[in-house]
Amino acid sequence: MSAHQALLGGVTAAKGFTAAGVHSGIKRSRKPDLALVLADRPSAAAAVFTINRVQAAPVLISKQRVRQGIARAVLLNSGCANCLTGPKGMQDARAISRATAQALHLPESQLLLASTGIIGRRLPVPRLVRAVPHLVASLSQAHHRHAAQAILTTDLRSKEAAVELTVGGRRVRIGGMAKGSGMIAPSMATMLCVVTTDAQVAPALLARLLRQATERTFNRISVDGDMSTNDCVFVLANGASGASVTGAAAKAFGAALEAVCDRLARMIVEDGEGVARTMALEVRGARTARDAQLAARQVAFSPLVKTMLAGADPNPGRLAAAVGASPAVFDPDKLEIRISGQTVVAQGTALKIGKAVTRTLLARPHVEVVIDLHAGAGRGWMFTGDLTVEYIKINAGYAT
Amino acid sequence: MSAHQALLGGVTAAKGFTAAGVHSGIKRSRKPDLALVLADRPSAAAAVFTINRVQAAPVLISKQRVRQGIARAVLLNSGCANCLTGPKGMQDARAISRATAQALHLPESQLLLASTGIIGRRLPVPRLVRAVPHLVASLSQAHHRHAAQAILTTDLRSKEAAVELTVGGRRVRIGGMAKGSGMIAPSMATMLCVVTTDAQVAPALLARLLRQATERTFNRISVDGDMSTNDCVFVLANGASGASVTGAAAKAFGAALEAVCDRLARMIVEDGEGVARTMALEVRGARTARDAQLAARQVAFSPLVKTMLAGADPNPGRLAAAVGASPAVFDPDKLEIRISGQTVVAQGTALKIGKAVTRTLLARPHVEVVIDLHAGAGRGWMFTGDLTVEYIKINAGYAT
Repeated sequence: MSAHQALLGGVTAAKGFTAAGVHSGIKRSRKPDLALVLADRPSAAAAVFTINRVQAAPVLISKQRVRQGIARAVLLNSGCANCLTGPKGMQDARAISRATAQALHLPESQLLLASTGIIGRRLPVPRLVRAVPHLVASLSQAHHRHAAQAILTTDLRSKEAAVELTVGGRRVRIGGMAKGSGMIAPSMATMLCVVTTDAQVAPALLARLLRQATERTFNRISVDGDMSTNDCVFVLANGASGASVTGAAAKAFGAALEAVCDRLARMIVEDGEGVARTMALEVRGARTARDAQLAARQVAFSPLVKTMLAGADPNPGRLAAAVGASPAVFDPDKLEIRISGQTVVAQGTALKIGKAVTRTLLARPHVEVVIDLHAGAGRGWMFTGDLTVEYIKINAGYAT
Repeated sequence: MSAHQALLGGVTAAKGFTAAGVHSGIKRSRKPDLALVLADRPSAAAAVFTINRVQAAPVLISKQRVRQGIARAVLLNSGCANCLTGPKGMQDARAISRATAQALHLPESQLLLASTGIIGRRLPVPRLVRAVPHLVASLSQAHHRHAAQAILTTDLRSKEAAVELTVGGRRVRIGGMAKGSGMIAPSMATMLCVVTTDAQVAPALLARLLRQATERTFNRISVDGDMSTNDCVFVLANGASGASVTGAAAKAFGAALEAVCDRLARMIVEDGEGVARTMALEVRGARTARDAQLAARQVAFSPLVKTMLAGADPNPGRLAAAVGASPAVFDPDKLEIRISGQTVVAQGTALKIGKAVTRTLLARPHVEVVIDLHAGAGRGWMFTGDLTVEYIKINAGYAT
């Protein structure tokens, strides 16, 4: 039994956090495109960022600010990535940062920034600055959903999760929101995500727990294998619960933080561009955990595996070809593959199974694939979706 | 000026080679599915194979046989990969090899094998054995096209190329055929390909020149980034021209061999599953040639770049995001990108260019992208195609 339990709510589920989401005019549609999350006091802050060499202006700014380990607020916009915008893009981000910090009466260094949307376009700074007073006036614990909606791009659904646990006899909450639908790949910070908690956590510990949670959740999902220039995961801990996370409590708190990230990560795949079916992919019996993870990634990235899933097309050989293309060391004559409990490959040989059976297994909304390399005790996993005609349609006309 | 010139013809363009292609009954359609290429005498032989850990039975057998450096014939089938078929798949391959070698009066060790098609299905051995006499009886210099057709799977067009050059005052020819449409990625032997030449070349030199040519051609194309279990590139040199390739002639001969492989490689992309437009991608100014090639691969693999091409959607930020995701070291503030001669990113900043202009550039049947990292003198390239709705449709129902 886990030491935490799921709650309704999102980025304001923890005590002392408010949020807002408004339409500022970046998006030509009337959809919300500017979000703000505010802590009631200076909070411990940590973040994980994209490892792309090309990074958006807000990423460069937030990276520097989060180093001090303290923040009060996160400002996020959708509709424009403010990336590939050169020195002017940095000026734009700073202008909006200044206006927001002034309206909130904060030192600018305590405001973190994130942007998502089309790369290579400038932000409409005057419109954003004009929207700030309304944004700040809208801040409320009840408006977590508005904030979650204002960071969406091609997402169809907003993504929120929250849990509660007990630390030293006190109730602690962790809540978060995320966006992400395309350009999703592991081995980076992934998409935009803000997590808040009313626990008191030292910044260094918070950073370590966030890195661990990200490594096991956001870094193990894949929609299309592309890597964004704008990914950020932020966590703010304001200590409003009065519970301090130290020593033995760190493990339970870390597990609860991972649970929030895991739920948001799965929501990203389920709402992935064009995704109709999801696949949980586990590689067992690898020589090492690293080998297992490399193999799981290779399979999760394979367009042939993902189109097989899209068509519920009985072709388990594609799973074998993908795992064989990975750097994982194994004896192909021992390879074993199961699809939702049904063994389809044993001792490196495809079993004769009726197409109708395999098709039924693959046609479920969620498919579980287990690949056993029989080479050791290493285990890894990925969570991914199918590759459909819809994905192509969305991405062949995104900028238009 | 190159020292060789293009010819019509294919795998029998060189003196002393015959070929045949027939329908044996592997494919349910009446299309040809069994091909044979025969040299008139024991020939120097070399090959490059897939580096997938899961390898088809014919790959395992051919790998062993080609080690002796001498072969007379190559037998290839489409419609069934004979992979993931265990010890029985090895028995199947050996039975067909035995029947063919007997019909040709060859030692079995001089017959190379290759298969392509669905993974995990057994070959219909009795049908193949029954087809061998007809296949052997059909061998002719005129039947190169039949052979090229009999190795196709989802390919729409057969792929043949040939060149002529002069070595030591004698006319030498090199010709080949290839198949490949999906499951095409670099850094491996790629697809099925047979090249023949009437030059006399020592097996070790032939192997080195084939590896070089493969590295610069088949290993620099990508359709979907998946890696096959069955890829083989074979070359046979029978010496029938009387010209011996040694010393200084090796360079010109290697260039001519590369030209044949290059033409076949481009044909594979042009006929790639669902490909409507092709993209030649060059990365310049990298710190090293290795960095340049890693960057070119990352861009060529990106589903977002490939769907941008499919939709002629003006979104050059995706090129920057993909190159930034590669391991290549560069200063993002110096990044420069040109699409078919038009600069779209300079000094790390997207230029304001009308959408109509970018759309027109991207809508051409063939698009040239140059990415300059301004970090050194390293150069790399890839040849790829767009990712279309048609690709998904083909691969969501391949086994059905």
